[in-house]
Amino acid sequence: MINFEQFKQLEIKTGKVLSVEDHPNADKLYVMKVDMGGEERQLVAGIRPWYPDGQSLVGRNIIVVTNLEPAKIRGVESNGMLLAASKPDRSDVVLLTLDRDLPPGCAIS
Amino acid sequence: MINFEQFKQLEIKTGKVLSVEDHPNADKLYVMKVDMGGEERQLVAGIRPWYPDGQSLVGRNIIVVTNLEPAKIRGVESNGMLLAASKPDRSDVVLLTLDRDLPPGCAIS
Repeated sequence: MINFEQFKQLEIKTGKVLSVEDHPNADKLYVMKVDMGGEERQLVAGIRPWYPDGQSLVGRNIIVVTNLEPAKIRGVESNGMLLAASKPDRSDVVLLTLDRDLPPGCAIS
Repeated sequence: MINFEQFKQLEIKTGKVLSVEDHPNADKLYVMKVDMGGEERQLVAGIRPWYPDGQSLVGRNIIVVTNLEPAKIRGVESNGMLLAASKPDRSDVVLLTLDRDLPPGCAIS
């Protein structure tokens, strides 16, 4: 169990996908640029097997944890983590999105 | 900034809405029963002004933080927190949902 203060340490926001490219060194990864509302971020995301048409993601609303320590994933900088739901056997991984459109940068709570 | 270990302390899962009722003591709150996959949970959620037709939520996929300490909200027990995005001026609040259908109880990461 965690308390509400611990939950509030996490910063989660809406983002809009600007571009999607294949990661140069990893089959299952995309390198995405995302409009977070006033700032642009680059994310590395392991959703490629379940979203083989990366270009179809451009313009979509995604949900991003924005205050995780930056990471280098297979040599590419990632400044945020998009949220997705996984079946227990990983046979499907599905992006979280918004029920209705909102601008990028809106806080999640 | 938080690290990945702190993020992993949070348990977030897909849920499917089973029922929605007006909170007996609060205009802006719903009392919802949610199928979390093998278990049913009751949540109190402050989304009523932005989702005035509560019955339209039945059967929908929502996203729930499942390991927050239980809370009593205006006298009604809440065992989880559904996630929603808010415009800064709170003129709109929008539920997080899934891009494609998945069973309830799937982990988010």
